[in-house]
Amino acid sequence: MTLPASTTVSPRSPADTLARCRALVEPALRERITRLHPWPAEMAGYAFGWCDIGGAPRTGTSGKGLRQALAVLCAEAAGAPGGIAVDGAVAVELVHTFSLLHDDIMDGDETRRERPAVWKAYGTGPAVLAGDALFALAFEVLATAPGPHGAAAVRRLSRDLRDVVDGQSEDLASESRPWTGPEAVDVHAYLRMAEHKTGALLGCAAALGALLAGAPEGTVHALSTAGRELGVAFQAVDDVLGLWGDPAVTGKPVHGDLRRGKKTLPVLAALTAGTPASARLAELLTAVRPPGAAGDAVIRRAAGLVAEAGGRESALAEARRRLDLAREALHSVPLAPGPLAELLTLLPFVTGRLG
Amino acid sequence: MTLPASTTVSPRSPADTLARCRALVEPALRERITRLHPWPAEMAGYAFGWCDIGGAPRTGTSGKGLRQALAVLCAEAAGAPGGIAVDGAVAVELVHTFSLLHDDIMDGDETRRERPAVWKAYGTGPAVLAGDALFALAFEVLATAPGPHGAAAVRRLSRDLRDVVDGQSEDLASESRPWTGPEAVDVHAYLRMAEHKTGALLGCAAALGALLAGAPEGTVHALSTAGRELGVAFQAVDDVLGLWGDPAVTGKPVHGDLRRGKKTLPVLAALTAGTPASARLAELLTAVRPPGAAGDAVIRRAAGLVAEAGGRESALAEARRRLDLAREALHSVPLAPGPLAELLTLLPFVTGRLG
Repeated sequence: MTLPASTTVSPRSPADTLARCRALVEPALRERITRLHPWPAEMAGYAFGWCDIGGAPRTGTSGKGLRQALAVLCAEAAGAPGGIAVDGAVAVELVHTFSLLHDDIMDGDETRRERPAVWKAYGTGPAVLAGDALFALAFEVLATAPGPHGAAAVRRLSRDLRDVVDGQSEDLASESRPWTGPEAVDVHAYLRMAEHKTGALLGCAAALGALLAGAPEGTVHALSTAGRELGVAFQAVDDVLGLWGDPAVTGKPVHGDLRRGKKTLPVLAALTAGTPASARLAELLTAVRPPGAAGDAVIRRAAGLVAEAGGRESALAEARRRLDLAREALHSVPLAPGPLAELLTLLPFVTGRLG
Repeated sequence: MTLPASTTVSPRSPADTLARCRALVEPALRERITRLHPWPAEMAGYAFGWCDIGGAPRTGTSGKGLRQALAVLCAEAAGAPGGIAVDGAVAVELVHTFSLLHDDIMDGDETRRERPAVWKAYGTGPAVLAGDALFALAFEVLATAPGPHGAAAVRRLSRDLRDVVDGQSEDLASESRPWTGPEAVDVHAYLRMAEHKTGALLGCAAALGALLAGAPEGTVHALSTAGRELGVAFQAVDDVLGLWGDPAVTGKPVHGDLRRGKKTLPVLAALTAGTPASARLAELLTAVRPPGAAGDAVIRRAAGLVAEAGGRESALAEARRRLDLAREALHSVPLAPGPLAELLTLLPFVTGRLG
């Protein structure tokens, strides 16, 4: 890898960066999807926001395209043209969408980005199938990528996917665990789950970009660490939004996570903060039988106690801490200044959805 | 590849062959499963027949282990020790079990091998997750396989998996198509579906064994063709068993496929045979509204008409024709005589489940 001795640092905005990377990756992603059987292809198009139920084209896309941008920027940060990362970017977008399709089934989430989830729109069986088709396609894209780094990219994707599946297992298993006592999920276990479930795929996106660019092992490791930390920060902010976000912005019902008895970072942090509000919160949540059956008044009171016990602040502090770790990782290896600047600008944008 | 100039042809029985290959592969398969998160690991163990719900060990295994045997025998037929195929055999068994878990959800099949299907035993969400875990693990096993052929094996698995997913898409989509008219599923489309859904993975098993043994391209192609043809024969026999098999042997309800309005080979062949019974069958099936709502008397009469129109004989003739094509493929390239003999003995055993 050779880095330019001097590069003008780009003043590109995060939105411009995401749009630039999307323009590079989306044509390849669309082309791959058209090669699927028409039925999973339509479901995939619906999930990507490209069409409505029935297949009528729709303007715009779903999602920010963060994973594809990370792959492209990390290839560029390693001194290669961003185009070299396109197969990696396509693979992580496919795997990300696969995981959304299947997770919505597992979690019983009926809406995704203000539209019916794929399983609500097309049925559970077809949604399972569409997810499987995207999963298989992701491996096919990497396994047939030109150049000398395809095999390493496949190894990396398969290793990180194990973490993603582990994280989803930990998340699902945590639903039946109690709020307090020795069997409770603690903040440490929660953060490990978030690193697997959300961090692993962002780390994979970064690693694939660097790997396909032929970056040395240390650079791949640093960029993937930055992606993982960003993922945990992202999840912490997502948890805060799940409790206090504006439903018009998040597309999710207010207090939805708390209503379903989900173990999220603000709640777990509040429960273990040792304040009087912590004890009242534990009492309130433990009294809900079965979990997820709480009425509106209880949910509002619980959300208030989470904030009072410092759960909101604690989750946001964790997000900031993880962003610092991501920045630290990015500064630990030599990277091309322009793409590095874009990466650094992207970090707070991703977690800054609180307004 | 060097083949021994003269080898005593083994008189091994099909059951001995399957047991020998299982002894080679199953320890590696079990070891891989223990590395999964405990929850999907238990569901996988249940699906493999190694444990009951809750994880208590159970003697015996589910399934014949045909795919693992094909991988091992094809490596040996290509002149390598069978052990070289173990990673490929593990990968196809993982993918096969993944597809059973997800297909049972899509098809609404509540029992599998006389036990509750995984989604009935553990819930739909967890069964989706367990399937995903096995799918990811299959790629990890191949991607990290030692030796020079891992990357080619990953490419092969991803390509064949696309066919498997296409086949499942075609199968699911066929359920809503009419029995007659221009929109009907014809025998040709059915056979393409069966080649994808069932043939692709048997072909993959054979190809992976040959690939990991370092066989030349022509040998890989011939062995994989034999596996594909065997898969279609297998599916044709499965369809006959689904209509006329003894529920005590098949573990499936009598006439189950016909009851659910599934488009299977005997029915499609009967409908297009041009006999008086064909016309009466078409009339009978078309009158069922919605499909799958037929009473016992109608189902029994339909099964009788399928047989009368020659549907049973036609499906069995197709199975025999496919076995001949498989044999032809095996004889088209030089193979080690001992393993070739075992492969040839295995073919009719697999389709000979009619008694």
